[in-house]
Amino acid sequence: MSGRKPFVGRSVKRLEDPPLLRGEGRFAADVSFPNQLHMRVVRSHVAHGKLNVIDTAEARALPGVFAIWTSADVAELPTIGVRLTKIDGLEPYQQPVLAGDMVRYVGEPIAVVFANDPYVAEDAADMVMADIDELPPLLDARAAPGDFSSGRATEVVVLRKGFGDVDAAFAKAHATIALDLSTGRHSGVPMETRGAIARYDAARDVLEMYGAAKVPHWNRDTLARMLGRAPNATHLLEGHVGGGFGVRGELYPEDVLACYAALKLRRPVKWIEDRRENLIACNHSRQQHYAIKAAIDAQGKILAIDAEFFHDQGAYVRTHGATVPDLSAAMLPGPYNVPAYRVAGHIRLTNKTPCGTYRAPGRYESTFVRERLLDAIAAKIGIDGAEVRRRNLLPQSAMPYARPVDTLGTEVVFDSGDYPLLLDKALQGMAWTAAQAELKARRAKGEHVGLGVAMFVEKSGLGPFDGVRISVDTSGAVEVVTGAASVGQGVETVMAQICADALGVDYTNIRVIHGRTDRIEFGMGAFASRVTVMTGEATKRAATILKAKTLEMAAELMQASADQLDIVDGDVVRKGGGASMPIGEVARALLPASRIRGDRAPGLNAEGWFHTDHMNYPYGVHVAQVRVDAETGGVAVEKYLVAYDIGCAVNPMLVEGQIVGGFAQGLGGALYEEFAYDERGEPLSVTFADYLMPTAHETPHVDVIISEDAPSPLNSLGVKGAGEGGTNAVGAAIAAAIDDAIGKPGAVRELPVTPMRLRALMSG
Amino acid sequence: MSGRKPFVGRSVKRLEDPPLLRGEGRFAADVSFPNQLHMRVVRSHVAHGKLNVIDTAEARALPGVFAIWTSADVAELPTIGVRLTKIDGLEPYQQPVLAGDMVRYVGEPIAVVFANDPYVAEDAADMVMADIDELPPLLDARAAPGDFSSGRATEVVVLRKGFGDVDAAFAKAHATIALDLSTGRHSGVPMETRGAIARYDAARDVLEMYGAAKVPHWNRDTLARMLGRAPNATHLLEGHVGGGFGVRGELYPEDVLACYAALKLRRPVKWIEDRRENLIACNHSRQQHYAIKAAIDAQGKILAIDAEFFHDQGAYVRTHGATVPDLSAAMLPGPYNVPAYRVAGHIRLTNKTPCGTYRAPGRYESTFVRERLLDAIAAKIGIDGAEVRRRNLLPQSAMPYARPVDTLGTEVVFDSGDYPLLLDKALQGMAWTAAQAELKARRAKGEHVGLGVAMFVEKSGLGPFDGVRISVDTSGAVEVVTGAASVGQGVETVMAQICADALGVDYTNIRVIHGRTDRIEFGMGAFASRVTVMTGEATKRAATILKAKTLEMAAELMQASADQLDIVDGDVVRKGGGASMPIGEVARALLPASRIRGDRAPGLNAEGWFHTDHMNYPYGVHVAQVRVDAETGGVAVEKYLVAYDIGCAVNPMLVEGQIVGGFAQGLGGALYEEFAYDERGEPLSVTFADYLMPTAHETPHVDVIISEDAPSPLNSLGVKGAGEGGTNAVGAAIAAAIDDAIGKPGAVRELPVTPMRLRALMSG
Repeated sequence: MSGRKPFVGRSVKRLEDPPLLRGEGRFAADVSFPNQLHMRVVRSHVAHGKLNVIDTAEARALPGVFAIWTSADVAELPTIGVRLTKIDGLEPYQQPVLAGDMVRYVGEPIAVVFANDPYVAEDAADMVMADIDELPPLLDARAAPGDFSSGRATEVVVLRKGFGDVDAAFAKAHATIALDLSTGRHSGVPMETRGAIARYDAARDVLEMYGAAKVPHWNRDTLARMLGRAPNATHLLEGHVGGGFGVRGELYPEDVLACYAALKLRRPVKWIEDRRENLIACNHSRQQHYAIKAAIDAQGKILAIDAEFFHDQGAYVRTHGATVPDLSAAMLPGPYNVPAYRVAGHIRLTNKTPCGTYRAPGRYESTFVRERLLDAIAAKIGIDGAEVRRRNLLPQSAMPYARPVDTLGTEVVFDSGDYPLLLDKALQGMAWTAAQAELKARRAKGEHVGLGVAMFVEKSGLGPFDGVRISVDTSGAVEVVTGAASVGQGVETVMAQICADALGVDYTNIRVIHGRTDRIEFGMGAFASRVTVMTGEATKRAATILKAKTLEMAAELMQASADQLDIVDGDVVRKGGGASMPIGEVARALLPASRIRGDRAPGLNAEGWFHTDHMNYPYGVHVAQVRVDAETGGVAVEKYLVAYDIGCAVNPMLVEGQIVGGFAQGLGGALYEEFAYDERGEPLSVTFADYLMPTAHETPHVDVIISEDAPSPLNSLGVKGAGEGGTNAVGAAIAAAIDDAIGKPGAVRELPVTPMRLRALMSG
Repeated sequence: MSGRKPFVGRSVKRLEDPPLLRGEGRFAADVSFPNQLHMRVVRSHVAHGKLNVIDTAEARALPGVFAIWTSADVAELPTIGVRLTKIDGLEPYQQPVLAGDMVRYVGEPIAVVFANDPYVAEDAADMVMADIDELPPLLDARAAPGDFSSGRATEVVVLRKGFGDVDAAFAKAHATIALDLSTGRHSGVPMETRGAIARYDAARDVLEMYGAAKVPHWNRDTLARMLGRAPNATHLLEGHVGGGFGVRGELYPEDVLACYAALKLRRPVKWIEDRRENLIACNHSRQQHYAIKAAIDAQGKILAIDAEFFHDQGAYVRTHGATVPDLSAAMLPGPYNVPAYRVAGHIRLTNKTPCGTYRAPGRYESTFVRERLLDAIAAKIGIDGAEVRRRNLLPQSAMPYARPVDTLGTEVVFDSGDYPLLLDKALQGMAWTAAQAELKARRAKGEHVGLGVAMFVEKSGLGPFDGVRISVDTSGAVEVVTGAASVGQGVETVMAQICADALGVDYTNIRVIHGRTDRIEFGMGAFASRVTVMTGEATKRAATILKAKTLEMAAELMQASADQLDIVDGDVVRKGGGASMPIGEVARALLPASRIRGDRAPGLNAEGWFHTDHMNYPYGVHVAQVRVDAETGGVAVEKYLVAYDIGCAVNPMLVEGQIVGGFAQGLGGALYEEFAYDERGEPLSVTFADYLMPTAHETPHVDVIISEDAPSPLNSLGVKGAGEGGTNAVGAAIAAAIDDAIGKPGAVRELPVTPMRLRALMSG
């Protein structure tokens, strides 16, 4: 890039927005094919039971019903496998596409109806009668596990990590702190529910599934394997995605059913989830129970942490495998110097909806736990919440810092960071000392107001690879084809910005293709805050190679040497001024039939690959100021600040959007959102009247400090992922602020802090 | 290839057939999208006139009509350009998408209706009223040309080629022969009419056109340019194609209208041609009038040929540009030694349907003319038709033979051939001498039976390039992606056979992707008998590179050296026996995330490119035996033999199919098919009751000799294209046989030899 202002670092407008603003978005429900069947899933109404017989006779008789399947009809399909954090022992607990002789949660697919219209399909599904012998459900992951084969919930595996001599540290400790803490069951609830439209083109022997998201390539491979097809004859196609958050785009039973039906019934099959289904069938997340102890010295410095937790996985192991508890366990020590650490994480099944990853998976939970611990240490020692953190933070001089644990198959090495500096910035941003004084004054007048601070290290840029292909056509239009996915995060814009700078074109002249397995053989998708880091670096590499190729060809065309040339705004120019040539002309010179091309490979295109064995680690500080209504138990967030160091913000506006949106989701988990169940395992949160998401009214303005003090040494732009830091510490910071507001340090031990729970705490 | 019988050379079953046999083909009419509009073209009912006003009011009022356009609505669209043989002077005569102030043939698009269903569209089209001042049409290309701008037909350009001193040869000639000869106006009439389904996906800003055929990439580039779009955001997608023959798949006004409408009206647009439209609006072909003279010596050897011809192009220059007359002119001298040659080809416009290429374009015509000339020489000298040819044929020793003319931008160099040998084989195959004696005896009994022989050189393998990408997925499935197109000729099977041998897998495990511009950036399509030669060689090169890549990786996996390994039936094996490994496992080792991959590029894939500046030249002999019914003027073909040397027959069954099918089309032009017009320019051949195609009843068994005596030195398999030799000389051979049957040498001067014409010849 030269001759103009770089695009990277600027809050340029999103390329994604024009069709969305014009109502031309193409979400899953917008995809239809002639002669399509509509699919409706019949779900278990019992949390735990023996499934005796399913009577479909009445439903089959309904005009317009084309087929109804039960488990016998899909007997050849294996259970759905694990995508990430595939550890031994998970397979027996994977979910079948349709339940066989046992049902394990309310909402479990037990049959499926295919009909000519969606209303008939729904009516017919209601007529399917399942005879189920109800058994007692297991609803608490802390309860004694049973035998899975007899339908009982069970313990899948215990994850253990750790380092240092924990017992010795406790033996010599100045003091010990022990806490029992829980995060509540909630999840990502995208505006767009799930959907899958499967079509088998017998003429080409190609199976296509529209409505893909997040990890189209992995899902392609898995669907192909499950269906006995070649991956290269199986294509997943992403449209617009109305929110991902970890839950959307994983491979679910419904996706497999739609594809299998398209193959077997030889008609396109469309499935669009309704909201009730979304709330009981799409991945839940977050429910963990911790017993945590810390050994500290007299200054409140941590000597060791010893933790045991119970991860409530729901009824089956889903595609994330052990990701959530694995990240909980590995990331729990956070930004602090923890000389010795031991953790045992129990992955437990219960008779509830199965769980998956949700924005900041495992970290929202363990940050809450760790930061509660820090607050408890502060209380024990009698110091301020900011001070206890400052005393324990890893110093900048410790970077890069290798913590002897691993997660997601990588070693945990914090690549860069200045944690104390960011804490200072955040406290200053919130006027911490002044605010403390002010709130003290307000409390003295009877108000329940408080401040809380929480810190965290995030992870991002999960490898192991990304590859991008860029080509320029004869019109000069640039196409970036990537195996990344877009869940609305701005991937098109960000990749275009990176490509634009490296190649020398305007970012609006770049078309970014993503989420289509027919356009690129390999891809990792969008999760783990990886796209800007991994796909971004691959894009930069491809664009750099492409620029060199362009200049080399242009040099011959312009009778110059390549180093005398540059590309500015899509034109190859002489650096000193003078003649220029549009890059489309260079593409024309490289057409296969071009003679001037000589021995050069045809086409103005290049591939770029980026491989890494390590994640990189952004970090942040949340500061919350809350006011508690003692009468109602309601909590109002008066002020909120997020300071986040991500090394390099490619598009600060998008980063801010990520942080603010992420905060709102963290707020939901802190105060409102909870999937509740009654004692029979019946879900109680099946509408938005029961499952309370924060609206604009509940969501305050968030002050955002985007910091770039610690660029990642692992990629050339220095970027770290920015998607999850807005969520990570919200539960922790708000818990601390509530403690402060009600004057009871350590009171909040469970999220969400609902009015009922808060009134109990205040009266306790 | 080793360890098993090669696939090349074997008549293996077609990969294309299973979906077709199961009724799962996907032709243009099978493609539909929700909410699509149906397009109907309003066509001129006048051959030549001034278009005053088009009244669409009544049609617009019909319920279900969405829009009606006339030329003013498409004013921004340029005329349709020339794809091939783009010479100076053609552009002013290119066809507009909708007629402006002049109409020039019956069937010319003058308006277009878009409606919610095809019946309404057709009804509305009938209600559109065009006020046209009729002018006298020009219907004979030999008539004096007029001024195009005033709507008159005109002379576009005169092509001139030649070599040697023609005048000197005539001056010293033993004798001179002069003939006036004509080939009739007919064309390829595929079972499937044309169709275009255009869809604009605003969400991705991608324009797609289904129903593409023949040259999707050229049409993509041209549509993109006409519509002001980037080629990489414009995709043409080929389905099954029910016959190509040169006419289907060129870019026509209807294709542009459908795409433009999809963009402007923001709804999918479907256009399916009906048969009447197909017969008046799709490319016609073949109509040429020749005045030809030969100078010969006393033995009947040709000293020089001097020819002038008039190519009836119809009302506009279409995409083939000057291809047909250019090939007529360049290929006229055929397999004979012609020391001096001069030709002037007049490209003339008339008020009839515009013309394009049709199987063996320009050669069916000039072979008829040349072979009639040879027959006339034989008659003049008093020798047999076989003997006159034998005396004039180029000998094998002359190969490669550079004839100092060019065509399609290439020099004409006959790459290999043994013409006398093939003539002997053909005569022997037909038992020529015995047959002559037998027919003489039958004639003596009053039967009108006769024998004719004709020879030709074909051209094939037009460059300049082809590129193929092959990849193997982890299941071991092989995908060959090519920019070639399939018009039913068996491209999938043939490419799979070639790839199978070079790579070492079974051909049924290979999927060949063609005709999709979204899958490969460049492609030449299917025309000029080029695919087996060009795409075949590119496929072989890609597969060879891929095999080496496979063995190199496998060597590490199997702890061997690559030269100890081979690939047999999809498994990497040790040549001496022992351990083996499926290629899918090698693909797995080359996944981007694989560690064993090391520094190798990710993916088990390879590209292969083939460039050439020269075509290659198969050659053939046709021998016909006919019986004339003197009373009706009907001609029955009693025996027919085609001997064709194509260097290497990849799949002899498919080659035989090409030859027999091609013969039937040649037979149509010889005896039956003709687009007739009345004196006002009204087409008279608008149904299959008027336009007579040979059925199974009229089409005799054809004896086929596939010869491989002269492999092409221009590619590694030695292949030459086989698509047009069955058609090339049918008119010539049948004309000679009719002469012989009615005992009037040189009687047949015009094709088709309809009963009426034949009765006139017999009574003349």
